[in-house]
Amino acid sequence: MAGAVELVLLLFVTFLLAKTLGEIAERLRQPALVGEILAGILVANLVVGDFVLLDFIQLNPLTPEGAVNLEFLTALSELGVIFLIFAVGLEVKASDLRKVGGIALQVAVLGVVLPFLLGFLLIIVLHGMAGTIEAMFVGTALVATSIGITAQVLRERNLLATREANVILGAAVIDDILGILVLTVTIGAAAGGVSLVQVAVVAVMSSVFVVAFVVAGPRLIRHLARPEKGLLERLRMKNAAFVLALLFCFGVSALAAFFQLAAIIGAFLAGMAMGTVEERYHLGRSFEPLNAFFVPFFFLVIGLQVNLVALGSVLPLTIAIIVLAIVSKLVGCALGARKMGKSSAIIVGVGMVPRGEVGIIVALAAFNVGAISDGLYAAIVLMSIVTSMIAPTLLTRLFARQAEGRHAGQT
Amino acid sequence: MAGAVELVLLLFVTFLLAKTLGEIAERLRQPALVGEILAGILVANLVVGDFVLLDFIQLNPLTPEGAVNLEFLTALSELGVIFLIFAVGLEVKASDLRKVGGIALQVAVLGVVLPFLLGFLLIIVLHGMAGTIEAMFVGTALVATSIGITAQVLRERNLLATREANVILGAAVIDDILGILVLTVTIGAAAGGVSLVQVAVVAVMSSVFVVAFVVAGPRLIRHLARPEKGLLERLRMKNAAFVLALLFCFGVSALAAFFQLAAIIGAFLAGMAMGTVEERYHLGRSFEPLNAFFVPFFFLVIGLQVNLVALGSVLPLTIAIIVLAIVSKLVGCALGARKMGKSSAIIVGVGMVPRGEVGIIVALAAFNVGAISDGLYAAIVLMSIVTSMIAPTLLTRLFARQAEGRHAGQT
Repeated sequence: MAGAVELVLLLFVTFLLAKTLGEIAERLRQPALVGEILAGILVANLVVGDFVLLDFIQLNPLTPEGAVNLEFLTALSELGVIFLIFAVGLEVKASDLRKVGGIALQVAVLGVVLPFLLGFLLIIVLHGMAGTIEAMFVGTALVATSIGITAQVLRERNLLATREANVILGAAVIDDILGILVLTVTIGAAAGGVSLVQVAVVAVMSSVFVVAFVVAGPRLIRHLARPEKGLLERLRMKNAAFVLALLFCFGVSALAAFFQLAAIIGAFLAGMAMGTVEERYHLGRSFEPLNAFFVPFFFLVIGLQVNLVALGSVLPLTIAIIVLAIVSKLVGCALGARKMGKSSAIIVGVGMVPRGEVGIIVALAAFNVGAISDGLYAAIVLMSIVTSMIAPTLLTRLFARQAEGRHAGQT
Repeated sequence: MAGAVELVLLLFVTFLLAKTLGEIAERLRQPALVGEILAGILVANLVVGDFVLLDFIQLNPLTPEGAVNLEFLTALSELGVIFLIFAVGLEVKASDLRKVGGIALQVAVLGVVLPFLLGFLLIIVLHGMAGTIEAMFVGTALVATSIGITAQVLRERNLLATREANVILGAAVIDDILGILVLTVTIGAAAGGVSLVQVAVVAVMSSVFVVAFVVAGPRLIRHLARPEKGLLERLRMKNAAFVLALLFCFGVSALAAFFQLAAIIGAFLAGMAMGTVEERYHLGRSFEPLNAFFVPFFFLVIGLQVNLVALGSVLPLTIAIIVLAIVSKLVGCALGARKMGKSSAIIVGVGMVPRGEVGIIVALAAFNVGAISDGLYAAIVLMSIVTSMIAPTLLTRLFARQAEGRHAGQT
């Protein structure tokens, strides 16, 4: 049983570090996820004399076992964000999202256009028009918001029912569609020609899926859960509702991918649909321990991507990209949400700033087709991580200040 | 995010099949795990025309993605049995185990000696003394009980508090120590010489660890959980007790391996130690959804090992080994438990019959060092699976009959 032993040692060390640094972060009044990302950075870079932590826990990707173990942690992290977003969906009402649909659309559009343009221009200024493809990829990497980061902050602080949270979540779904379209155009350009038909097909497929599922999903669930005759009531298995929730979560995530969307968008829609029977089945309670185990790996694996040694050489460019990424998203999204008033608009803007795993995925895709250098790749990865650590801290403070303001206004 | 998509599709298909066949098994009054093992056999062997299920869900181990995905499912299955046994430990009192210690020791010893001898003799009769090493490996594969199978039956039917369950669990811990000793001797013999010193070291290390942990483990937990000053009460993180339980589960499992025991023995001891604060923290409730997700993969992956095509050629030998495996363990363990009365002794015997993943692991080790042929390997794998499917069904009936008997006696 050598396999099982390596596995528990790996989980013990990584989970212990994530939870310990998360606890320290909380004591410093930061969100726990900041500590969990730092734990990932620590795991990837800790060397004390001859002791290399990555080797000790067999996570060195240059060895065969290390590569397999890294794949396993990555799978845990992917499940982590899928379960997290499903649980968020359980607490969100489709009707609330629809109410803020107009604002969310503006937030998403301006929050895509501005980062793309500024990222694109930065590279054109640096490398001239010869760097057009490179510039498009950098712009694309700045586009995609990672909703997992903000969702966890909102969930931890019980803020999912706020209007700002609904705007952020709605905008994140639209942002994902727009991000896929931008990526389709960029990949097309890199391959020698953009097919407008293909872009249109992706746009129509993904939008139709979201709209159709928001309408049909809750009905299907209510049908399965109807008293006495519903499938759910007739099953003999233990935890039938929870099992159905898991299957629905996996199934709709896979289906979303078929319609060109990210798996987590499917998980969000599935969660929202299951949310219509939440009062009866209390699925949120069952997902709580699942998320306590899985979600820290989502943040830890983001931190694992940082190679501190490789970073020194591209520091000025990295700083420029980080500043651009924060300012462009914040300004774009806050402009889109300006009707909500200044403090709410800023909260929405900050909530959309984290790029998390999505920025890293785009950077990796660009790197793999040879469109960007490894220096630029490292810079985008660090941008994804820094935005994922700054935004939660800011967001927590902004919500606290807003609550204080309201409290002061009442007394 | 191609990785996440393959992942959710794989989980959707496998989890759906496991849960569906589990449900059907329950409707046929069989334990759900029988259906879940069958789901694994189905996944590994379903071919309809050009449609090969293993290829569709990218689980064909002959492809690079398939190999990675199989490693992932295997890791889920290892975590599944670890979490399952931890949850069983939560419900078991060390004092109850100590009360049945004498009987458990007899059950374990006779349940190891008889299967080893009969397995050994079978091969000697077939192949002569030239097959001594082969015969030792077959004997060893017949020795090891897989406690995960029986534990799940006992847990599902709320039978963990019975005296029979305590004897089975205590005997399983001792059985694991004895099994490791037998394996050490066999591997030594295959390598050209048995080192008695090594065997003694393994025996002392593993026994000392178990005894020391049963004494010290609960004290450590009570210390961490003491009111106000205990670490557990001072942590800011959410779900602190559950997080500690997970860390304890991983840590002690890894530690057990260091002392030459199986990881699940560590998980069992860790669960038993945490069980001393169970009334305050209700950890069993938190492990319920975790197990609902993970445990089906334990049974599914056992079923995945069956290659129906390869089986035809070794059918007579396979049948002989299966019969020997069942009879030798049942008779040996029931003899050890004879003081408990006939019906209880038979329950204990049947409860020790499943070989599950442990038999498969020994067979694989033997196959990898070239000690057994692939025909014999296939036969042992099928023996492990058949014993894992027959025993739960029998056990459920025996407990039901015993309850009826008591009921009849009362009225």
